Amino acid sequence: MALAAGVLDALINALGAEHVSTDPDTCLTYGTDALKRGHPADVVVKPGSTDDVAAIARLCFRTRTPMVPRGAGTGYTGGAVPLHGGVLISLERLNRILEIDEENLLAVVEPHVITGDLQDAVERAGLFYPPDPASLRQSTIGGNVAECAGGPRAFKYGVTKQYVLGLEAVLPSGDVIRTGGKVVKNVVGYDLTHLLVGSEGTLAIITKIILRLIPKPPVQATMRATFAGVPGAVTAVTELVRARVIPATLELVDRESLAAVSEYLGGRSLAPAGTGALLLIEVDGLQEQVDAELARVERACRDAGATEILRAATAAEREELWAVRREISYALKMITALKKNHDIVVPKARVPELFDLVESLRQRFSLRIPCFGHVGDGNIHVNFMVSPDDPDEIERARLAEWALFEGVVVLEGSISGEHGIGFSKAPYLSLELSAATIAAMRAVKDAFDPLGILNPGKMF
Amino acid sequence: MALAAGVLDALINALGAEHVSTDPDTCLTYGTDALKRGHPADVVVKPGSTDDVAAIARLCFRTRTPMVPRGAGTGYTGGAVPLHGGVLISLERLNRILEIDEENLLAVVEPHVITGDLQDAVERAGLFYPPDPASLRQSTIGGNVAECAGGPRAFKYGVTKQYVLGLEAVLPSGDVIRTGGKVVKNVVGYDLTHLLVGSEGTLAIITKIILRLIPKPPVQATMRATFAGVPGAVTAVTELVRARVIPATLELVDRESLAAVSEYLGGRSLAPAGTGALLLIEVDGLQEQVDAELARVERACRDAGATEILRAATAAEREELWAVRREISYALKMITALKKNHDIVVPKARVPELFDLVESLRQRFSLRIPCFGHVGDGNIHVNFMVSPDDPDEIERARLAEWALFEGVVVLEGSISGEHGIGFSKAPYLSLELSAATIAAMRAVKDAFDPLGILNPGKMF
Repeated sequence: MALAAGVLDALINALGAEHVSTDPDTCLTYGTDALKRGHPADVVVKPGSTDDVAAIARLCFRTRTPMVPRGAGTGYTGGAVPLHGGVLISLERLNRILEIDEENLLAVVEPHVITGDLQDAVERAGLFYPPDPASLRQSTIGGNVAECAGGPRAFKYGVTKQYVLGLEAVLPSGDVIRTGGKVVKNVVGYDLTHLLVGSEGTLAIITKIILRLIPKPPVQATMRATFAGVPGAVTAVTELVRARVIPATLELVDRESLAAVSEYLGGRSLAPAGTGALLLIEVDGLQEQVDAELARVERACRDAGATEILRAATAAEREELWAVRREISYALKMITALKKNHDIVVPKARVPELFDLVESLRQRFSLRIPCFGHVGDGNIHVNFMVSPDDPDEIERARLAEWALFEGVVVLEGSISGEHGIGFSKAPYLSLELSAATIAAMRAVKDAFDPLGILNPGKMF
Repeated sequence: MALAAGVLDALINALGAEHVSTDPDTCLTYGTDALKRGHPADVVVKPGSTDDVAAIARLCFRTRTPMVPRGAGTGYTGGAVPLHGGVLISLERLNRILEIDEENLLAVVEPHVITGDLQDAVERAGLFYPPDPASLRQSTIGGNVAECAGGPRAFKYGVTKQYVLGLEAVLPSGDVIRTGGKVVKNVVGYDLTHLLVGSEGTLAIITKIILRLIPKPPVQATMRATFAGVPGAVTAVTELVRARVIPATLELVDRESLAAVSEYLGGRSLAPAGTGALLLIEVDGLQEQVDAELARVERACRDAGATEILRAATAAEREELWAVRREISYALKMITALKKNHDIVVPKARVPELFDLVESLRQRFSLRIPCFGHVGDGNIHVNFMVSPDDPDEIERARLAEWALFEGVVVLEGSISGEHGIGFSKAPYLSLELSAATIAAMRAVKDAFDPLGILNPGKMF
């Protein structure tokens, strides 16, 4: 769509010409995220304050112009793509850490702080912000909040929502709301804070975030255990829990992912021959606790039939143990031109059934489907490897995806544990949610955005 | 109001006469909660299933009859009171623990399970459901979820919302929704789960709850430290956090509360003479961790000027250390006929300012205001002691309450950390929330309950 008359002038008037761009390259670049299926914005604006955002929203509200907030554009489901054009609101100028409050264990930040930078800053103060999505060196805390980002540490520490205490946000009408606050306990009115977390920029534009911090665990230790197959690794995880250990991270890498890494490395393998599953386990806390937990972890892995157990004694060794996990995404990207990564999640005890399901899909659809991920919380990244010039393979992958999602719901799981719905997973929403549940969500959307101008075309 | 024609017959038809009562005593008893300012229902019904609840809702929706869900009626803000009469839905027959899933660390329960019973059941399986409101032997998990109950352990373990993974709930229309699920990570659609937690039965009637469990910490240890005044105790808490210790509970009892307990016990004191503040500290975890943390706790208390530090070596000693804390509520009830308990919360570092504020209120309004509570998260119970036959004192308390709430908001706190708004705190809502924020909450209410029939007169 084209912008209504006067909108562009009003934006320039409100923000200054240097913060408003209609350059086609800019509009397409800012209209594309990591999904790589973008749509150009009509105009890209860069507000410098909450008041600026509110002014933009009021203008869009008055003229019924679509508007889409954007962080770093690292999302995998197209959440920041302006499907219907309109005003792309890049929050890049709202990039300050406003407070790190050591006494009250909280931080107040603007949305465009890079998550990794925030972590560095709070860790310098001896504090800890645990959520660690793989994109943390690129993605913003505002994007993390909008998507409710997870990451490996979620098993012990929870996901983004567990750390958001309060928000300032601009409604589609331009009204500014403040939810929650600087306290952990707050039951005054509805919990709009956690309604906005994970709402993918469809209800309000987040302009300020109050985050809960915790003391930084002084000691971390890493262990790697290999198994003949996934069932042994899952047994080890179950035994760990029985032994009262909740590791900070519990990552699983399957045989096909290991093969992909080996292929990428020119045949060199990072695990012993015959390894069908690899677990990376990190525990943290006080030294006494870490020592005690590591002993329990080792026993659990041995009892579950581990073929090899390695313990990192130095930072360099730790880095080496993590190498496989870190190489996977690169490796998968390198050995195929098109990789579709689905972040499905099932109850932990059903992970073996999930792998049975994936194995059946491999057979039935003749596909390579390497899997890896956060086995502690049942959140497994299932990757469909397809050649972009093989339409038959693409179609087989499409059918396999559908079967995967259906199977995940049967296993009492969810079709997205981390990446959200955006527009790429919207067609699958009704696989998981009933018509009444979707209707309730739509009613919430209408309550916040009666004109349907904020990030239209997403989720539903 | 009287029930519309045919409603009573339809209810009897749907539920059976034995589950429908219009007996005036029953209607008043079920119309009153711990606030003790009730209103009779027109009819009390006891559904036995989600389908029953849905049938009741459909009937009320069609006839525009108010309906109010009720758990054990232990709420302090009138949340379960049928202010406008209508149908009181007691959920007492939905009282089963449906699953305790040790492998996936979760429980599935109906709303009327007593929270303490649930805790006992999961602890028998070596698991742990941390939220521990003082009412846990009377209150139900459904009520805890509706109010987002807290408790002493919230400092380390968080409040109810941190443990709710999914819900089944009946909308005012009678439609049944299912939110979240059996996984910790789930970003499919809006987080209606956490919107319903703490919504005080005004958006939907919760009929099933999926709760996250954690491994039960094998060892607990209790320590009591006394100080000359509140500032010393708060310094100790700050030092603890600096020493990387997050105790499971951190309870503070002030001088006036100690005096009340002593008065109740006929002059016998449970703390050394001159004690101005008492801290109860519990740490838990593996033995190695508990030992290490206790040493740090002791050092932090000593550095902050503790006058006495006691460590419980046995369960009996632990019980004795807790005696003061347990006696307070009884003591306060016994020594005055009317006690108004406000569960305000401020950022932890501002607790000394809060006590300064309370002291100024004591002077200005000539009131006894004993305070105690969860200092770790800044959630302090501020109790106004008034004589019911002293209208002047009642009026002074009313003015002091208003000043307290205003002061708490200035201290960046919240007027309710645990008890909710109900109808008793509704007049104060706009002290804390802006008009735009309240309007957004009202829009959510209208989205769920367009006819305004579910628990009307609450929150706003």
